[in-house]
Amino acid sequence: MEIPSFQTLELTVDDGIATLYLNRPDRMNAFTREMKDELIAAFDFTDATDEVRAVIVTGKGRAFCAGADLASGGDTFDYKKRGGEGANPDDAHRDGGGQVALRIYRSLKPVIAAVNGAAVGVGITMQLPMDVRLAAENARFGFVFSKRGIVNEAASSWFLSRVVGISSALEWCFTGRVFNAQEAKERGLVRSVHPADELYDEAVKLAREFADQTSAVSIAAMRQMIWRMAGASHPMEAHRLDSATMKSRGGSNDVREGVNSFLEKRPAQFPDRVSTDMPDCFEWQSEPPFKAI
Amino acid sequence: MEIPSFQTLELTVDDGIATLYLNRPDRMNAFTREMKDELIAAFDFTDATDEVRAVIVTGKGRAFCAGADLASGGDTFDYKKRGGEGANPDDAHRDGGGQVALRIYRSLKPVIAAVNGAAVGVGITMQLPMDVRLAAENARFGFVFSKRGIVNEAASSWFLSRVVGISSALEWCFTGRVFNAQEAKERGLVRSVHPADELYDEAVKLAREFADQTSAVSIAAMRQMIWRMAGASHPMEAHRLDSATMKSRGGSNDVREGVNSFLEKRPAQFPDRVSTDMPDCFEWQSEPPFKAI
Amino acid sequence: MEIPSFQTLELTVDDGIATLYLNRPDRMNAFTREMKDELIAAFDFTDATDEVRAVIVTGKGRAFCAGADLASGGDTFDYKKRGGEGANPDDAHRDGGGQVALRIYRSLKPVIAAVNGAAVGVGITMQLPMDVRLAAENARFGFVFSKRGIVNEAASSWFLSRVVGISSALEWCFTGRVFNAQEAKERGLVRSVHPADELYDEAVKLAREFADQTSAVSIAAMRQMIWRMAGASHPMEAHRLDSATMKSRGGSNDVREGVNSFLEKRPAQFPDRVSTDMPDCFEWQSEPPFKAI
Repeated sequence: MEIPSFQTLELTVDDGIATLYLNRPDRMNAFTREMKDELIAAFDFTDATDEVRAVIVTGKGRAFCAGADLASGGDTFDYKKRGGEGANPDDAHRDGGGQVALRIYRSLKPVIAAVNGAAVGVGITMQLPMDVRLAAENARFGFVFSKRGIVNEAASSWFLSRVVGISSALEWCFTGRVFNAQEAKERGLVRSVHPADELYDEAVKLAREFADQTSAVSIAAMRQMIWRMAGASHPMEAHRLDSATMKSRGGSNDVREGVNSFLEKRPAQFPDRVSTDMPDCFEWQSEPPFKAI
Repeated sequence: MEIPSFQTLELTVDDGIATLYLNRPDRMNAFTREMKDELIAAFDFTDATDEVRAVIVTGKGRAFCAGADLASGGDTFDYKKRGGEGANPDDAHRDGGGQVALRIYRSLKPVIAAVNGAAVGVGITMQLPMDVRLAAENARFGFVFSKRGIVNEAASSWFLSRVVGISSALEWCFTGRVFNAQEAKERGLVRSVHPADELYDEAVKLAREFADQTSAVSIAAMRQMIWRMAGASHPMEAHRLDSATMKSRGGSNDVREGVNSFLEKRPAQFPDRVSTDMPDCFEWQSEPPFKAI
Repeated sequence: MEIPSFQTLELTVDDGIATLYLNRPDRMNAFTREMKDELIAAFDFTDATDEVRAVIVTGKGRAFCAGADLASGGDTFDYKKRGGEGANPDDAHRDGGGQVALRIYRSLKPVIAAVNGAAVGVGITMQLPMDVRLAAENARFGFVFSKRGIVNEAASSWFLSRVVGISSALEWCFTGRVFNAQEAKERGLVRSVHPADELYDEAVKLAREFADQTSAVSIAAMRQMIWRMAGASHPMEAHRLDSATMKSRGGSNDVREGVNSFLEKRPAQFPDRVSTDMPDCFEWQSEPPFKAI
């Protein structure tokens, strides 16, 4: 396992738990195109590396991520002027936060956000496809788009109402107000609030629950199933998918070990690997194609 | 701005906030065909009028709305007997509450319900496509359909489970029981409960948060995105829509003002208008056609 | 009304309330193929029997259901070895829990789970298409699939996030941990928690609220509408369905009785029956076909 190094991120792996630090602390970890590319590369690494059983995302310094880097001022979101994707009139622009969000949606490993400080704009929308969010007492959140003249991006109009319900989604996006960890907890945006100096340890504790004595293949398959079925029209779609998965996994070494260890009341040691043993019935990296509207 | 006058409603506009009063207090604001037509006309007005930045819906007198007007007794829902839509056997009937609900779903302005008293039958289902509900302590709610022999209408089988989750939706509709504001709050039907004499002021306070120093175009676009994506199958649909919207808005005067006012730490003055500056990628009034089943 | 008898279940009907006991107490009501077939037959009976107005599902002995019967040890989920559905390589396997879940999803009568003890694996996933869950203080829950090497089955990847939201769904399935009734309540998996010796009476009390002075046809129609629309893309789908239902029911004897009894302030006696008076616009037992992936 060779851990890649990045300009805007720092990635560590300790006993199966990867920690991905947003690492531009002098800019409050503001989001840039480079950070977008590196986040995608980081999740490519954690997916491809069997040693990684869970991913924690957090920020270096006092912020989680203060949103898009506004170094270009009023031109920040003017893709025609700034060049890059969408610069030509006929050229489709793909929102950068959305590219990251869709990559996290496809992750084969569970993802925990440890929100250590301000999480504003894309700093909070990028967290929505993560599975669980824990917050420090001093964390702050803001869907500030109405105050910048833009819209809630990073595919968050799909994710946010599924995490917190539609009324809070609308209210937070309309007001653009910055709110604290307690409000985030009451409305279901974060699972729990912790003293700042205990936040990371709590995230590791949960990551260990994901990683210890569980089947990595089971978790990768369930992650795909649950996220996909959140948008499915009929439970028959889930029945098709879990029937095929159960048939594929039913005779696996993991199942034999899972049942036997339970009956023998001993810790399980699951042998199967995400890199080699995923059921065929998932086409793992598939997703509907991007098309310009 | 010429404010229309109505038979069953009263509409006021004060400093950007429209208040729409259900105004049949001697009938507890019971819902009629005329009220249906006037509600649709009222939202046509608030959408078309740039001065209106948010809409509050509340009731005159002691009720919000006591449901369908039962002046026709047992024939109330007998469309063949009563004439009008659906009177002929081959003529499709379109539920009146649903026509109102779909109109509110399409609203370009945020909508707040200030539930001042009883909200029963269509009196509560018409509120579900509104964005946020505030209740007076004395408000009462009832999905009383099972007790009248009808079904939950106004497209509420789509809306209700998205607002309160599926279990409360089913329980309330099965029992048909009338419940108080506290239960409505605990299960997520209303955002907050207030003393009766503070309710309207609280609704105005929230409407001001929607209206002040926010971009009207941002809010109109986000409202469409969040409601639509609540029913979308895959986050790629949101990514397509917000990428196009971000490209369209990225170079706008609103974005320039939003970013510059933030960097200059001064209040924003957004110049763009809903009537002229909406992104092309939304076809604003489009919706799937009605078809009889 | 002839109540069928079963090997793995016990079914009673008392004053309109059917109680379906999982009845393998010496095996903690562990789920078998026979139980699958009998559960489906039991819901066929409750649907076809007009006297039954609500169904309570609970367990005999100290467990609700401890999950799949592991008497076959490590071969439990090895369908090729064990024979039956999916035994041949080309033969599609249909998950047994999913067949039960889809049958409950289609139920014409409201279903209440009274969780009297451990509900683990399929013991909890089979409850998700039930409408309301009540738990005894000593109930325990576990989505233990990651600890057995399998995946969350019974179409639960569709149901679970709609009941408790996506973050709790993912966390519980990833960890596989067993949790208590209080956590189940806090996260919305169960509606309420009761002392063990009051649980069944509380379930009956709620079933009575469903059954007394309500229209059986209204409830059957609303149950189909609300569950189906939980997966629908646009509220227009609900508008089509409730418009047709309102037209069909609007002139019914139930509606006449519902409105007249209300105006006369007397208890309603609804005459219509599920077996004969359902609106044509539902094709009641229809569902998308099963196809192997």
